[in-house]
Amino acid sequence: MTDSKVEFLYLNEEDMLKAGVLDAGRCVDTMAEVVSLLSKGDCLMGGRGHNDHGIQLIFPKKSKIENFPLDDSRDRRFMSMPAYLGGRFHMAGEKWYGSNGRNAQKGLPRSILMVTLNDIETGQPLAYMSANLLSAMRTGAMPGLTAQYLAKKDTKVVSLLGPGAVNKTCFMAYMAKFPEIETVKIKGSSPTSKTAHVMKEFIEKEYPSVKNVVVCADLEEAIRDADIISEAVSVPHGKWPKIKPEWIKAGCVVISSGTMDITDFDFMREKMTKVVDNIHMYEEYIQVYEERDKDGSRKPSGTPGMYFVNMIDDGLIDRKEVYHLGDIVRGIAPARVSDDQIFLVSLGGMPILDVGWGYECYKKAQELNIGTKLKVWDTPYLI
Amino acid sequence: MTDSKVEFLYLNEEDMLKAGVLDAGRCVDTMAEVVSLLSKGDCLMGGRGHNDHGIQLIFPKKSKIENFPLDDSRDRRFMSMPAYLGGRFHMAGEKWYGSNGRNAQKGLPRSILMVTLNDIETGQPLAYMSANLLSAMRTGAMPGLTAQYLAKKDTKVVSLLGPGAVNKTCFMAYMAKFPEIETVKIKGSSPTSKTAHVMKEFIEKEYPSVKNVVVCADLEEAIRDADIISEAVSVPHGKWPKIKPEWIKAGCVVISSGTMDITDFDFMREKMTKVVDNIHMYEEYIQVYEERDKDGSRKPSGTPGMYFVNMIDDGLIDRKEVYHLGDIVRGIAPARVSDDQIFLVSLGGMPILDVGWGYECYKKAQELNIGTKLKVWDTPYLI
Repeated sequence: MTDSKVEFLYLNEEDMLKAGVLDAGRCVDTMAEVVSLLSKGDCLMGGRGHNDHGIQLIFPKKSKIENFPLDDSRDRRFMSMPAYLGGRFHMAGEKWYGSNGRNAQKGLPRSILMVTLNDIETGQPLAYMSANLLSAMRTGAMPGLTAQYLAKKDTKVVSLLGPGAVNKTCFMAYMAKFPEIETVKIKGSSPTSKTAHVMKEFIEKEYPSVKNVVVCADLEEAIRDADIISEAVSVPHGKWPKIKPEWIKAGCVVISSGTMDITDFDFMREKMTKVVDNIHMYEEYIQVYEERDKDGSRKPSGTPGMYFVNMIDDGLIDRKEVYHLGDIVRGIAPARVSDDQIFLVSLGGMPILDVGWGYECYKKAQELNIGTKLKVWDTPYLI
Repeated sequence: MTDSKVEFLYLNEEDMLKAGVLDAGRCVDTMAEVVSLLSKGDCLMGGRGHNDHGIQLIFPKKSKIENFPLDDSRDRRFMSMPAYLGGRFHMAGEKWYGSNGRNAQKGLPRSILMVTLNDIETGQPLAYMSANLLSAMRTGAMPGLTAQYLAKKDTKVVSLLGPGAVNKTCFMAYMAKFPEIETVKIKGSSPTSKTAHVMKEFIEKEYPSVKNVVVCADLEEAIRDADIISEAVSVPHGKWPKIKPEWIKAGCVVISSGTMDITDFDFMREKMTKVVDNIHMYEEYIQVYEERDKDGSRKPSGTPGMYFVNMIDDGLIDRKEVYHLGDIVRGIAPARVSDDQIFLVSLGGMPILDVGWGYECYKKAQELNIGTKLKVWDTPYLI
């Protein structure tokens, strides 16, 4: 029974680099396919509603038990994100990762991520891969795709709020689709922020066509004149960027991949065209994770997509006023209709993105004969 | 920065065998530790309530989309089960698997499972292992542990309802704790069931001390005289075993790892001592997965633990009447108080079990220098 042999391909980070994981342009194009499949319903995520972001181990703030892991550093959690992606992908998979803000002190990324791809029929693993780059690239590719469809054709100025790994890959994706970008404004935690200056050096070195790379003194400087505002901030509530409407240039696309402080809900409701990756995901997320103050009022989530759901629930906007990026890509929802139009786009991340970009890297690795083949069994011990 | 190197140990099925995954006695003892930690609150599972069994990809019965995977075979699903386990384990991990009833035709197990173990601090993978045997053994060890604490000391007769992989490992665990078992009654889908006869041959070959191994003609024959009824049946509703109260011997422990048809709720309420692995898990599960008929009445789940929750919700029993196995192991809930006492025990499976037994196999593999070390990176490309 040769059929019953199970093996899979292991791809470490070096293998992933060889398999083209950093190809931002191709990643954006793949994400266009993925969100189109989402728009067609040709995919599946977790839970009864088929739209769960994932399942999380939530650590407590305190514990009486010795050595119990606590929610005591930035993003400390474990998360599993399973999905099926249809179309030409026709594959299941999941991303599983642990995060801890203290990893930086050890020379490690905050999150360490692995992706498994599985045969949709038998369930067997086909690939197991280091997914830090995969995940960063697919996360950046979504703002890139958003910009490709919604930013003005003559986009020249990009603002990066939060100069971390996410905005690095966002920027790679913007450049893949808008090579004529001239000015990049960087806003870190302070004007002397190390990551802000590392980002500046990265851009100056890798993208010599960009004429001006400015580390901004304050948020207003970063926002003014930007055609694309790329928010990828991961900080506690209280430190979220507060963007004032009067700073935003007409025609700007505000893309939120992290958290931000919405200061003017009327402006958001009336003047910004609202777009999300997947409204159902925010609905599901609110059901499980939305926190309330003692008086019953919602704690702010910092995520525009969750505010959109809150506003729908409160009757302030209609569900039809929130567009899906995949519908826009497919041409069944409107893209930009005027040069002045301002967009607010919320991207929360979905496991189908990991399966999509993971699949592409896996196929490329197979083509180039990269990686380590590993056996699970020749014949299973127990049937 | 040698610190920033990340590598893990890969263990295929052969490695797992060498690392002692089939040691049923040690697995039962490990499960005693695991459920004790659960009883102390020194563990964490997924979701806001910290008690989710896992997150599932639920395939639809029908789809208009070409090639969409359907719920068209037994157990077809994907599932991710993450957990943290405390105490001396102090480790996170998850089990990720795909199942499809059609795998049997291909010489493959119905489910193909992999377990990852992760450093609780950094989140990095420590081990990635073939988990078919791990999962089968930990699943069987829980009934073994149940029997160890609740079955009569002079237990001689075991009834195996559903002679599949689960009951095989259950039996291994019973024998580890009750080597004086004399009679095994096997009930398969029919008296000529192939798996029933394979089970009979397995027991006769591996456990010569067992004097009588009987493939039973009907359910009544299988139930009568049994000291332990070990139910591990995975069939559609309508085929669930219907156990009549009058068949059950005084002093019997009925252990359900699968699905069964409860025919007499009064008997269950009044005459059976109710025990579960984790009542919170069934409560969470009901919240997400319980199905209702069009008239609003509950569809039967076949899982005693879910019936217990239903009965608590309906005010038919008190929550205190349902005991936790971990509390019994720790001696803070009563074990058997009389020779006549009949128990109904529901075991649903928890990801902490996989982390517990996975940890033991991983440690043994390290000790014996088994497995393949794999690098994720020497230094991460992106921090």
